[in-house]
Amino acid sequence: MASKWKAATFNREGLELFNYNVYAVCGDGCLMEGVSLEAASLAGHLKLDNLCWIWDNNHITIDGNTAWSTSDEMATRFIAHNWNVNRVGDANDLQSLERAFLSFQREKERPTLIIVDSHIAWGSPSKQDHFSAHGTPLGKPEVSATKNIYQWPDEEFLVPSELADHFQKQMAARGGQARRKWETQLEKYTKLHPKDARTLRHMMEGTLPPDWDSKLVPFEASAKGLATRKSSSKCLNAVAHMMPWMIGGAADLAGSCLTTLEFPGADDFMAPSSDWGHYGGRNIHFGIREHAMGSIMNGLALCKVRPFGATFLVFSDYMKPPIRMSAFMRLPCIWIFTHDSISVGEDGPTHQPVEHLSALRSIPNLLVFRPCDANETLEMWRHVTKLEDCPAAVVLTRQDLPTLDRTKYGPAEGLHQGAYIIAGGEEHPDLILMASGSEVWLMLQAHEILVAQGVKVRSLSVPCIGLLKTQSDAYIKKLLPDSCRARVSIEAGRRDQWAALVGLDGEHIGMKKFGESGPMKQVLENFGFTPEQVVVVARRVLEGKPESIASRAAKATVKRRKVCA
Amino acid sequence: MASKWKAATFNREGLELFNYNVYAVCGDGCLMEGVSLEAASLAGHLKLDNLCWIWDNNHITIDGNTAWSTSDEMATRFIAHNWNVNRVGDANDLQSLERAFLSFQREKERPTLIIVDSHIAWGSPSKQDHFSAHGTPLGKPEVSATKNIYQWPDEEFLVPSELADHFQKQMAARGGQARRKWETQLEKYTKLHPKDARTLRHMMEGTLPPDWDSKLVPFEASAKGLATRKSSSKCLNAVAHMMPWMIGGAADLAGSCLTTLEFPGADDFMAPSSDWGHYGGRNIHFGIREHAMGSIMNGLALCKVRPFGATFLVFSDYMKPPIRMSAFMRLPCIWIFTHDSISVGEDGPTHQPVEHLSALRSIPNLLVFRPCDANETLEMWRHVTKLEDCPAAVVLTRQDLPTLDRTKYGPAEGLHQGAYIIAGGEEHPDLILMASGSEVWLMLQAHEILVAQGVKVRSLSVPCIGLLKTQSDAYIKKLLPDSCRARVSIEAGRRDQWAALVGLDGEHIGMKKFGESGPMKQVLENFGFTPEQVVVVARRVLEGKPESIASRAAKATVKRRKVCA
Repeated sequence: MASKWKAATFNREGLELFNYNVYAVCGDGCLMEGVSLEAASLAGHLKLDNLCWIWDNNHITIDGNTAWSTSDEMATRFIAHNWNVNRVGDANDLQSLERAFLSFQREKERPTLIIVDSHIAWGSPSKQDHFSAHGTPLGKPEVSATKNIYQWPDEEFLVPSELADHFQKQMAARGGQARRKWETQLEKYTKLHPKDARTLRHMMEGTLPPDWDSKLVPFEASAKGLATRKSSSKCLNAVAHMMPWMIGGAADLAGSCLTTLEFPGADDFMAPSSDWGHYGGRNIHFGIREHAMGSIMNGLALCKVRPFGATFLVFSDYMKPPIRMSAFMRLPCIWIFTHDSISVGEDGPTHQPVEHLSALRSIPNLLVFRPCDANETLEMWRHVTKLEDCPAAVVLTRQDLPTLDRTKYGPAEGLHQGAYIIAGGEEHPDLILMASGSEVWLMLQAHEILVAQGVKVRSLSVPCIGLLKTQSDAYIKKLLPDSCRARVSIEAGRRDQWAALVGLDGEHIGMKKFGESGPMKQVLENFGFTPEQVVVVARRVLEGKPESIASRAAKATVKRRKVCA
Repeated sequence: MASKWKAATFNREGLELFNYNVYAVCGDGCLMEGVSLEAASLAGHLKLDNLCWIWDNNHITIDGNTAWSTSDEMATRFIAHNWNVNRVGDANDLQSLERAFLSFQREKERPTLIIVDSHIAWGSPSKQDHFSAHGTPLGKPEVSATKNIYQWPDEEFLVPSELADHFQKQMAARGGQARRKWETQLEKYTKLHPKDARTLRHMMEGTLPPDWDSKLVPFEASAKGLATRKSSSKCLNAVAHMMPWMIGGAADLAGSCLTTLEFPGADDFMAPSSDWGHYGGRNIHFGIREHAMGSIMNGLALCKVRPFGATFLVFSDYMKPPIRMSAFMRLPCIWIFTHDSISVGEDGPTHQPVEHLSALRSIPNLLVFRPCDANETLEMWRHVTKLEDCPAAVVLTRQDLPTLDRTKYGPAEGLHQGAYIIAGGEEHPDLILMASGSEVWLMLQAHEILVAQGVKVRSLSVPCIGLLKTQSDAYIKKLLPDSCRARVSIEAGRRDQWAALVGLDGEHIGMKKFGESGPMKQVLENFGFTPEQVVVVARRVLEGKPESIASRAAKATVKRRKVCA
């Protein structure tokens, strides 16, 4: 088949390394789910003519007939999304199927949907077109009866020798030939375009070029500092500049999450006919489509591209399924979440994440980072860029945070252990404070007060609990000696994962309920995020009187209905 | 306006208590999000002709022009969903707007979309049609300049007296009159249809009829027992039978979640022209649309209907945003999640929830229940039905669980405290075991072994951690005395919220990584869910040697990229 991918970055005149097509088989459920809108709409907009969806239109869902729950005219819907639509009236009509695939191959402007009318459990005397065939096996007698109708021998796992031959000989030969042809092309490419070939090798082998971090510049200490979304933006640009296969974007929040790649040549990823972008561009405008963004990122990662995608932390809920899939498939996606706490202030509780850090941390294999200043952010990018087999969530502030003077505080390189001593050198502390992100500066202020009061206090910066857990017992015990049970964690989120560090004798200063709308400072004060309040909590923990479970519950009145005549 | 709601259950000939229309104003983002497909598709299928969406088509998103990310032909898309589509070419053309609304009012078969072409920041000399007007205020000088173009006085918060009069006098009078007319109707209705009026009063006041629980029948002890999805199904039917305003359904999993209301008259909720259902039906076929199901449930709850909705626990991710909104708005939605652990076995890790209990529990105001047998399930339904101002997640097994002999074990009524002593009467236990749901029976088997070994063990059933936290300090300390730090929790989920009960000296037997595909028994054994393994863990906790953080981490190899030339 001729190339359809007109502008892949690696392709050169006469040397088309990438020209494959993407096929997906969809059921009724796939096309009812919202993500199908998001993906189809964006694919049509981007004119992805190498994408072909085949809809198995069998009118059956697990609960019954599709007529119970949908009346969509699917061809019209996809025409509205700028797709080429073909219909095959009978799944067994091979000629019609071939015509439909030829229409896809000829199409030069639009993705293709092939609607294939089919019958579930085709041929089964009692189960054809019945929903029982969706969720449960046919059973042995019905399988026999169906094979009889097919005039097929009633043997289990029968593979006729002609078919085995076709697969093992003809198809294997065809695939081997194609592979060898591609490898010959790659050799030629390597000679003619050695720099591009080197880049391609790094991408395909999952390695980094020697100069990958050469543009990462440490940040100078500053009391005013800057938001971690800003320091992260600089680091992302520095790293992506050296890694041409790092591409991504935001769900219509690039201007707020600051994820636009701005170095020369970064450009917008757009359909070729657009005035200002092209397929070689690296800033993807995903639109207001978090679920599709996440799913596309997973697809990119499977193709060895290094994807990043951004939105506000509170909207991570909209893309929870693809985040889980990235963790499950061990894809090194970089999930960027800004506006990470009640500190967003006036936008109010709908936009104030409270439980999201906890929800993300609960996903196995996903490393959740929440850096406390610009230099931790830089170390985080060093760490995340190197990850090969697990995704990372990068959680960042909207508001400025001081860039810490690391001659005074522990070095930011401690991030690579997940947690480290940032202040308080005492070997046998009476009290351990720990915090992440924007609450680290708050902790350090409380630390000063407690030291002035004569308390032997140690403060830990904990940018990644998940990473801490992978350290040695010795390292963890050095940070958190068993003997010191007076521990206070501080994070504008839920207690959940902190409880495993704080124990029964400590306390967590966090969010017991949803946020409130108001100026940031006032909102923070309202929820107890002040140095003075941290000191109050620390003192009662030191006295062995931590707040009880009952009194730390939000004490939200759970109203109950009355029984009335 | 004449009634459009043809078959509301409470309406009677000449007495139309409910005939309102529902209007929604949508932006470009709303219609790009996947949930807009799910909702529009279902509304078109159900022929909701009293629903009107007004699309503010201003071509601007927060990041730029809609042309950056979408090319959808919106009218065609909604025609595909069986909607009546109107277009108004200019948002300031009041006559065209009126014509569009009249078209909605006349429409008797389809929901209506009114596409209104508009200009963001209309009239603003430098910001009209620019995306900066989406996310940031115009600023004082630009506001003054815009008011000048409107020929409007440059005063802050100016409300002309004619407008105030119109609102305060004419509109208030109109509203008051409509209200009085409706109340007169209701009085008449109460006389003519006293039984229906009583039902309506319970619904509107959030109270329960005196016989609401008369059909709930305790389950007899049984070693074979039954799945909690099955006992829950019986309870749901028993309660809903007595509460005609309890309606709901599943996202195409009613047959698996067992949420179909089966008593006479329950029927399917369908468009009137369908052959087998009607708008008075109570089983809603939401289709494979979890996000829309959740959003619709919230809408129903705001209308005082008592909604329930069901899917598999692992799919709760698809509806996380509406679950959060129900908690945030304190709506008493009942979220039913079955197939609640790795015990689903062969379906494999994509269908095995691991982190979902933790994610749900982290949402403030949401009570998460995971009952251990049929009688806890019954008590759960008693509890949940009575909730007035918070949603509940009801988490249930696919597999059978023994129905416990409550003459031997603590009474299931303990559920109402969130946790209770289910076995082990010792006042000063050496060891406390705790578990939820399907792991309670496992705990009780280990309990027996430990007792035989001479250990003074107490076992707690913990069906709802959130509810436990609202109990008195005295109750919590009675269950979990400070002096007993040898504690083991068992749940086929993450440690997260259990850590606050187990502390630094205990252990959690749970899921450190994603599940595996295989026969249930084998999968459970593989992850250590056997009585023998619980005993091993309990003994090391008793010896004061709980597994360390480092060794309990999944020790998943976090591979790092190499730096290569």
